[in-house]
Amino acid sequence: MARSMSAHCSKLTTTLVVFFLAWSNHVPEAAEGAPSWFWWPPSGGGGDDPNCLSWRVMVEANNAKGWRTVPAPCVGYVRGYMAWGQYYRDVGSVVDQAAAYAAQVAPADDGLDAWVLDVDDTCLSNQPYYQAKQFGPYDPAAFKMWASRGICPGIPAMQWLFQTLKGRGFRVFIVTGRDEETLGSSTPANLAAAGFSGYDRLVMRGSGSRGQSSMVFKSAVRTQLAAEGYRIRGNVGDQWSDLQGDCVGDRVFKVPNPMYFVP
Amino acid sequence: MARSMSAHCSKLTTTLVVFFLAWSNHVPEAAEGAPSWFWWPPSGGGGDDPNCLSWRVMVEANNAKGWRTVPAPCVGYVRGYMAWGQYYRDVGSVVDQAAAYAAQVAPADDGLDAWVLDVDDTCLSNQPYYQAKQFGPYDPAAFKMWASRGICPGIPAMQWLFQTLKGRGFRVFIVTGRDEETLGSSTPANLAAAGFSGYDRLVMRGSGSRGQSSMVFKSAVRTQLAAEGYRIRGNVGDQWSDLQGDCVGDRVFKVPNPMYFVP
Repeated sequence: MARSMSAHCSKLTTTLVVFFLAWSNHVPEAAEGAPSWFWWPPSGGGGDDPNCLSWRVMVEANNAKGWRTVPAPCVGYVRGYMAWGQYYRDVGSVVDQAAAYAAQVAPADDGLDAWVLDVDDTCLSNQPYYQAKQFGPYDPAAFKMWASRGICPGIPAMQWLFQTLKGRGFRVFIVTGRDEETLGSSTPANLAAAGFSGYDRLVMRGSGSRGQSSMVFKSAVRTQLAAEGYRIRGNVGDQWSDLQGDCVGDRVFKVPNPMYFVP
Repeated sequence: MARSMSAHCSKLTTTLVVFFLAWSNHVPEAAEGAPSWFWWPPSGGGGDDPNCLSWRVMVEANNAKGWRTVPAPCVGYVRGYMAWGQYYRDVGSVVDQAAAYAAQVAPADDGLDAWVLDVDDTCLSNQPYYQAKQFGPYDPAAFKMWASRGICPGIPAMQWLFQTLKGRGFRVFIVTGRDEETLGSSTPANLAAAGFSGYDRLVMRGSGSRGQSSMVFKSAVRTQLAAEGYRIRGNVGDQWSDLQGDCVGDRVFKVPNPMYFVP
């Protein structure tokens, strides 16, 4: 009995030593690569790569400009950030701010108080596409193919904001740099499927504005809206080029996007 | 011998079981509160409170405006962020971007290519003061007392940027909302002690601009610099009110600051 107990303890000790050493070796690395025998969120879920977190905050603060692709060491971080909750938490926080601001603005009876929303990665998510492309550089043909399928998931918090703005009596204009000729049917269908119905106008890029930067194109659209008498109370986009230029609106809200940069 | 081995193993087993259980219980919580028997960085060191991380990114992206104090649940997060490295990592990343941009701008021989730098939490750190105040709301008298001591630590990466800009031949103007009458001697002394020597001009708030918002005051200063012929190539500040308004410069760089908001 004593011998069998000893053998048992000895075996348990060995197991524990091995397990403990494995654990103590792996926990500090867990954020970088999940060991197969234990669940751990992948890198980026909570902002756990300090250098990539710095980079992401720089993107959001518009300090990093003109970058063509996610830095190679941050591809795993961005994948984790987008897929494991922090992205949706961040979008939700921005939406909370926008809704709190909208609640303080009383739309006038003339129906001219308006909000402007962007499409890609503001109302609709391209995360599945960019994840499949390993967050690589912009590929116009492949992106058009993806967008033409009309299957971009809606971003739930933004859909809620959209309904909230409509419910408050604001006009909602959806303004996108997507090409009207090739994506003019898939885009409204995709928006409707994702719950974005009842907007006042969807403005897409026509043949006259091809080749313009997004900032130039969107500034012209907003200037036209202002000329029609609309007061742009809020403007929501995932790119700073949505939020800078002319007639940007009384308040702008930057939705996070560490996947790509549009000038 | 067998018995003593058994006793040894038994004790080791118990120790390991206790240690393992303690470890497995505490590691997931370690980010929220360091167990006394094991070193672990406090909350916020790497952005490990997801809601506070969302809030911090909103501050940096200028989505959160007009906040009067750090949200109570994020005080520990901000303390950890500021003190445990991520803040300095983030500042370093911004400085890298600014220096890379400055390297592409060739100052002309006329000596009119200029940069504008802010003082508080751009060149000099108020982290010791705000940490001691538990990141509470702005307290003008206490802050003036702190600033008058002239002991704010310099922010090393910014000091490097300052020297780099001077070395490249830019004029450097230091523009601060600090009151000239009360802090007009401690501020340049503090800057010099922190390695900020050889700037072209230090502009402080005089009696004529008391009561103006920081954005109005700094816009007027930059407009005056532009009227003197200076071309503001870069503008670095920790507040969006440093970086918006008139004559903001060709590029603006937002240094992180989750401690306070200046309109």
